[in-house]
Amino acid sequence: MADNRFFSVSGPFDLAELARRTGATLSDPSCAGRRVRDVAPLDSAGPEDLSFLDNRRYADVFAASGAGACVVAPEFMDRAPAGMALLLSDEPYRAYALAARAFYPEPPPVPISHPSAVIAANAVIGAGCEIGAGAVIGAGALLGARCRVGANAVVGDFVTVGDDTTIGPNASLSHCFIGSRVVIYPGARIGQPGFGFAMSKRGFTKVPQLGRVIVEDDVEIGANSTIDRGSGPDTVIGAGTMIDNLVQIGHNVRVGKYCVLVAQSGVSGSTQIGDGAVLAGQSGLAGHLTIGKGARIAGHSGVMRDVADGATVMGCPAMPIKQFFRGYATLQRLTEEKGK
Amino acid sequence: MADNRFFSVSGPFDLAELARRTGATLSDPSCAGRRVRDVAPLDSAGPEDLSFLDNRRYADVFAASGAGACVVAPEFMDRAPAGMALLLSDEPYRAYALAARAFYPEPPPVPISHPSAVIAANAVIGAGCEIGAGAVIGAGALLGARCRVGANAVVGDFVTVGDDTTIGPNASLSHCFIGSRVVIYPGARIGQPGFGFAMSKRGFTKVPQLGRVIVEDDVEIGANSTIDRGSGPDTVIGAGTMIDNLVQIGHNVRVGKYCVLVAQSGVSGSTQIGDGAVLAGQSGLAGHLTIGKGARIAGHSGVMRDVADGATVMGCPAMPIKQFFRGYATLQRLTEEKGK
Amino acid sequence: MADNRFFSVSGPFDLAELARRTGATLSDPSCAGRRVRDVAPLDSAGPEDLSFLDNRRYADVFAASGAGACVVAPEFMDRAPAGMALLLSDEPYRAYALAARAFYPEPPPVPISHPSAVIAANAVIGAGCEIGAGAVIGAGALLGARCRVGANAVVGDFVTVGDDTTIGPNASLSHCFIGSRVVIYPGARIGQPGFGFAMSKRGFTKVPQLGRVIVEDDVEIGANSTIDRGSGPDTVIGAGTMIDNLVQIGHNVRVGKYCVLVAQSGVSGSTQIGDGAVLAGQSGLAGHLTIGKGARIAGHSGVMRDVADGATVMGCPAMPIKQFFRGYATLQRLTEEKGK
Repeated sequence: MADNRFFSVSGPFDLAELARRTGATLSDPSCAGRRVRDVAPLDSAGPEDLSFLDNRRYADVFAASGAGACVVAPEFMDRAPAGMALLLSDEPYRAYALAARAFYPEPPPVPISHPSAVIAANAVIGAGCEIGAGAVIGAGALLGARCRVGANAVVGDFVTVGDDTTIGPNASLSHCFIGSRVVIYPGARIGQPGFGFAMSKRGFTKVPQLGRVIVEDDVEIGANSTIDRGSGPDTVIGAGTMIDNLVQIGHNVRVGKYCVLVAQSGVSGSTQIGDGAVLAGQSGLAGHLTIGKGARIAGHSGVMRDVADGATVMGCPAMPIKQFFRGYATLQRLTEEKGK
Repeated sequence: MADNRFFSVSGPFDLAELARRTGATLSDPSCAGRRVRDVAPLDSAGPEDLSFLDNRRYADVFAASGAGACVVAPEFMDRAPAGMALLLSDEPYRAYALAARAFYPEPPPVPISHPSAVIAANAVIGAGCEIGAGAVIGAGALLGARCRVGANAVVGDFVTVGDDTTIGPNASLSHCFIGSRVVIYPGARIGQPGFGFAMSKRGFTKVPQLGRVIVEDDVEIGANSTIDRGSGPDTVIGAGTMIDNLVQIGHNVRVGKYCVLVAQSGVSGSTQIGDGAVLAGQSGLAGHLTIGKGARIAGHSGVMRDVADGATVMGCPAMPIKQFFRGYATLQRLTEEKGK
Repeated sequence: MADNRFFSVSGPFDLAELARRTGATLSDPSCAGRRVRDVAPLDSAGPEDLSFLDNRRYADVFAASGAGACVVAPEFMDRAPAGMALLLSDEPYRAYALAARAFYPEPPPVPISHPSAVIAANAVIGAGCEIGAGAVIGAGALLGARCRVGANAVVGDFVTVGDDTTIGPNASLSHCFIGSRVVIYPGARIGQPGFGFAMSKRGFTKVPQLGRVIVEDDVEIGANSTIDRGSGPDTVIGAGTMIDNLVQIGHNVRVGKYCVLVAQSGVSGSTQIGDGAVLAGQSGLAGHLTIGKGARIAGHSGVMRDVADGATVMGCPAMPIKQFFRGYATLQRLTEEKGK
């Protein structure tokens, strides 16, 4: 299914093996020996493919799918077409992810530094690293084992990177410590000075930005996203946090662990975000706020006040989502009454 | 007019020739032999310059312009200053564009690979390509004829590019097929993995992103814009579509033909956009939506539901633009009443 | 305090010297000889550190701080803990900035061109410039004295740059004139063609973009921000203006002097912005507008009409901020009444 110029498939696996790797349960144990050769979307999967149903809106596609096997929640069992083997899971998308990773494991780095890469004499490059053409590694930089540095990426002086971390092409890093198993996408900018200057009657006076960026383990930072270093305190991205493309993180921001920052969201300086919070696309947070653990910021919202743990807010200025939609309904009602 | 360090002018042309090239009609055929040496804005154009009027708000500037000739809609004829030759067109901006392209044709690529470029031994580079300093072309990549690859750009392994396509400096491409006559601006990121992971009680599980990006012919992709590859299906940008700077396109998105995505707009994963749709600046679309052909999304709007063919929507959540402005008027009226 | 791998500290300075350099007044002249070795945030500063209080919300942290000295407004004097020396200033953040710059002066460029940099034979590089690895300087380009060009940055043909200007890694410039003491952050894109094409029944016709970008002295342009060149007129960024990360500036825009454009804000083509205007984060301006001097655009606002000098606007479409909040209050009140 996947284009073999770009991806190479492992396997095949039988369903018993896939059940074991995904934590799913075979609805019909007699299918345990059935062979699967690939993963595929419901609408194009064939008899040797594994697919998945995770979104109710695709239930009809599921019911008509030619997939030989499918990961699905138990509630959809009776919608399955005849002959489809079912791997039942309460978390079908997670189970599918694990299956797909069995078929398409990440290839290991090729332990070579391209001759055109420019690596400072006192930089330390861990075992098994792959350094792309034109990449630049600065003085005193430290890379752990099995890192990848993409073509034309720039790792600044004294930057430290853990093990198994990937830095995409054309990305640039400075004044930062990056953990292990971090993925930095192409064009991301990490560690440049924050937007710090004193505005006064006598003009702008720039404030030295003396902090760093600390990116903990297992973080992803999307393409062309920007994370400024702290002004004195550090800017911190907690372990496991997922940052999408074109996201802005200002100086001194602290993002908790396992947060999700969707594309084009932005966080102003010194704001603190609790573990597990989610910022949907194009949302923005003003500076010096505290966003609670597990808080959810709706897409395109602008947050101007603190948000409590677990709260969901929407609008600009953002308010609790129920309040937002009650206001919305009120306005629609009054407008219709006026129209009569 | 244009700075000759950056641009070189062709011509001169007489008005008969410009009428022919632009499809416009000379209001006074006796001007057919008048020579024009350049194009210029209304407020600085002189007797040997061609200018244009396209926006009613500049009609006074037109009436006072010293341009020797001007492309204009017939309705503005009688506002023209004495002595100005008029090229009449129902589409004056288009006619001006064609004239400007006569004076300033795109120079052809210089068929050279800079010696510092790193081109894989098995990459295939078409005739007449210009490969800039420090550019990196990966294994198995295919470039058509007369492509330009800017300095320090990175074209990943097995990427395929059509003819006459330009890839700007510092851009990076992977896992994609790019058509002919495509223009990719500096710093654009195409083909990195989409933002795909399963969120569950047991943390985040990354989902392999096994699709590609397909960019059809005649597309433009703005500076620092990001287009993620599909998760299984492809991400597709239809022929002729214009994408401005800092635009985000998520995985599995399908953008139709001749769409316009203005700067800082964003499209979440799996959304489908019909031919000819326009997303104004900073607008955003939620995931898994269907946006109709010719739909128009107002600037700074957030779309959370499907949009019908030809509809114009505004606000967040976006609604039909008339409904939006009726609600807006209602709120203003009620606020004023309260103020009394 | 600051990580000495990334920053090196000057000093120590006594308080008399710091008062002189910052324009602040020592509240107790007997402290004039007290030595200060560093700057630090209130919550971590020790007896040899200088800190500052600028935001009322941190007054309690100030009252409990162990800082040996602190820059503070006179009104907070009596909140100071015992033993803390006070540098009194009406502009404490500015005074702190000046002190921090005494401790952490910007190191001068190292006057070397890395051998992997590609510098056109007829480019002119001023005295004392530092050109990073893999940087590309085009034909006819002119750099003033003491400029820095970061690794893998690309300076296009005939670009002119003043003195003491910094161009970050992976940035790209073309068709532009850049002043002195300008700071261009990593990944910024300056001078690419604007988003200009005629939309007509016969498709899109691209319009040659024949202008330039003029960046005046003392401007900052943030990471991954994009500034398109003019279509005929120039795009101009006035002296002293501060542009944050991921900001979009369309063609023909004129930004005044000492403006502030916060992260992810955007300005559509041909809009003019008066001196001293502030665009907060994620705000956007439609095209062909006039924004007055000192105008303020609230975060996440969308401006569709001209804004008067000194006005503050909010919302989308943006309106005077008082009007916005009166409408907001009206809607909340009506919603609560309905709820009863």
